Amino acid sequence: MTGAGASSARVVMERCELLAACSDEPGAITRPFASAAMRRAHELVGAWMRESGMSVRRDQVGNLRGRYEGSGEATLLLGSHLDSVRNAGRYDGPLGVMVAIAAVERLQIAGKRLPFAIEVLAFADEEGLRFGTTYLGSRALAGSLEPVELERRDAHGLTVAGAVQSFGGDPARIEEDRWSGPKPLGYVEVHIEQGPVLEARGLPVGVVSAIAGQNRFSISFQSEAGHAGTVPMDRRRDALVVAAMFVIAVEQEARAHQGLVATVGKLEVQAGAANVIPGRVDLSLDVRHPDDSIRLEACRRMLADAHGLGDSRGVAVQVRPLGENAAVPCAPRLVSLLTRAAEDCGQDAIQLPSGAGHDAVALSSLTDIGMLFVRCKGGVSHHPAESAAVEDVAVAIDVLGRFLELVGQP
Amino acid sequence: MTGAGASSARVVMERCELLAACSDEPGAITRPFASAAMRRAHELVGAWMRESGMSVRRDQVGNLRGRYEGSGEATLLLGSHLDSVRNAGRYDGPLGVMVAIAAVERLQIAGKRLPFAIEVLAFADEEGLRFGTTYLGSRALAGSLEPVELERRDAHGLTVAGAVQSFGGDPARIEEDRWSGPKPLGYVEVHIEQGPVLEARGLPVGVVSAIAGQNRFSISFQSEAGHAGTVPMDRRRDALVVAAMFVIAVEQEARAHQGLVATVGKLEVQAGAANVIPGRVDLSLDVRHPDDSIRLEACRRMLADAHGLGDSRGVAVQVRPLGENAAVPCAPRLVSLLTRAAEDCGQDAIQLPSGAGHDAVALSSLTDIGMLFVRCKGGVSHHPAESAAVEDVAVAIDVLGRFLELVGQP
Repeated sequence: MTGAGASSARVVMERCELLAACSDEPGAITRPFASAAMRRAHELVGAWMRESGMSVRRDQVGNLRGRYEGSGEATLLLGSHLDSVRNAGRYDGPLGVMVAIAAVERLQIAGKRLPFAIEVLAFADEEGLRFGTTYLGSRALAGSLEPVELERRDAHGLTVAGAVQSFGGDPARIEEDRWSGPKPLGYVEVHIEQGPVLEARGLPVGVVSAIAGQNRFSISFQSEAGHAGTVPMDRRRDALVVAAMFVIAVEQEARAHQGLVATVGKLEVQAGAANVIPGRVDLSLDVRHPDDSIRLEACRRMLADAHGLGDSRGVAVQVRPLGENAAVPCAPRLVSLLTRAAEDCGQDAIQLPSGAGHDAVALSSLTDIGMLFVRCKGGVSHHPAESAAVEDVAVAIDVLGRFLELVGQP
Repeated sequence: MTGAGASSARVVMERCELLAACSDEPGAITRPFASAAMRRAHELVGAWMRESGMSVRRDQVGNLRGRYEGSGEATLLLGSHLDSVRNAGRYDGPLGVMVAIAAVERLQIAGKRLPFAIEVLAFADEEGLRFGTTYLGSRALAGSLEPVELERRDAHGLTVAGAVQSFGGDPARIEEDRWSGPKPLGYVEVHIEQGPVLEARGLPVGVVSAIAGQNRFSISFQSEAGHAGTVPMDRRRDALVVAAMFVIAVEQEARAHQGLVATVGKLEVQAGAANVIPGRVDLSLDVRHPDDSIRLEACRRMLADAHGLGDSRGVAVQVRPLGENAAVPCAPRLVSLLTRAAEDCGQDAIQLPSGAGHDAVALSSLTDIGMLFVRCKGGVSHHPAESAAVEDVAVAIDVLGRFLELVGQP
């Protein structure tokens, strides 16, 4: 690892380390929306933005925005988020912001202005740890944040509006956070993959083709509890046995279709005692695919499985849809420019879908989006063991830098 | 329903209703060991024992004992328990005590003494709600209560010894509760079936052949969590999928052997979030059969299934045995006398195993045991909906009365 990318990458790694120390929980990384930890993160990130020649402001909802002017009117948006899950890793979010700042820093060091301005966006709430919502920051910027979201409450009963206010914003003026200039050239986000595909392929970076669409359901299997010692097997209507059959059916359906992922991540048993035949099971189902029609057809089959299994055992099945997001394709032009930038940097540039949601989803209603994934160790994310290699970060900085050159060309 | 049994049965039902009002939780039946609710229950039950011609004493551990003298030295023990689970039904425990008192009452009304004394035992702790132990009362009487049990603590940190003391007993003298006279003729317990077999067969009562042996295990399936959106299906090691396969394997094993019951009643998923592939599942396994060799062989196969399933998916499986009770056969002589008593009362008397444990298990180290099950609605127990019919209770009183005549015959 040599050259400008290498030393920038080391700075990025150090900065991710410094941000990891901005936490509401000692000994762990937990940085919720509008928290004391976020305030300290803003002080650091704001300083780094200014050092890189950007003007910095915090908007009402709590995004930190750094602007590096160009020679023309247009603006290209770069960024990611600064908030985290509970007991998080160092890179999910911060890496994208730090790589964007590093790219700007290199322009400043070279004394270069591009034909467009760059705005580096450090979003306030992608994970939704505090309020159970997502994209509060990027939706405010895209103009798609519904006022009703400000009434949500955290575990202490404080509303989003209250949190915004205590963080120094004015909840009544969040509308002003909406992007108001000419339509941006696009939004490009660098992010760790949070999956094992790049590692398995031996590649430092990959270009995202689309962000997968997603359905979430809550499904309950309900029958009748019974005594584990006294009810013969042939007289049981065990809700957990039916739920177990469903878990296996979900896996089979998902395995049968390339690119489909489906997960039962939550499963709660009632009564939940060793000597009671389960009378009720509630579980979550999460289904994702970059092609909406494949995802919807898979959901239809899985829910039919749930009902069929319940019927065959006299167990009532109730399905509650919790949410649905359509797939968001990345803009072909940005995909192709990122791919070319990677190739120009000597990298094999595969395209892969993102199974996770990102701020880019919210930005897609405002402008074209593109994403560059960075390999992460073991695909581990949302965990203290989250790890990215400095060599891969150097590649990402180089690719983003090359992309900035390409996107300005006519 | 006519005759003496009918009116006694109505009294038994009323008394179960009055006991239901002795509760530590308003609006529910919750009567733990050595509680204020138990104190009120003792006042009622003690009065009913005395009305039936019994001398009454409370022993150190907190069993209430009523004695109806006979013409000879020998003693027959009858009884069941007065404590309950949380939010219990009216009959699990109290019914057996009330039917025993009713049988003695009929002797007293008829001015009859049997060639043996009857001691009606109202045991202090069968369910183990307060201290997570079972049979505190009947083990004290059988002389099998280990002193270390007195150090267990309840949710408030109070020990068994402290609870005994505050209830008026002397924990240092529990040894004196041990049966000290000549070996009793036997112990006979009337209890609701807590299962659906008698109802399915259309029978008011049944004679217990044996109390099933039982194994309990805690089994953990451990692998690695992952992001539900980003880890492709073929790279997952989902602990819940393996646990689900195990739940189904357990059911299949149990269904393949007559009389075998096996239950996964508790199952906890970590992280337990909709968007996280489960990295760990902990579950309980409860296996019961009246034949020890069949039970042990079934356990061996189920645990082999757990390890085999884990190995096939790269999921580590850990098994922790939590406890094992050998099957307790009822004494053939008592089984045959109870069967004859039922036939003499015009009933088809089937024999059936008990899948649940009872105080009779603890008493089996002291004397021969026998049990008479009473049909309960839908097999429901440990639930406010627990229900027994007054007509069936009348049959139980008649059968127990006839049994008392038969057991005294040479």
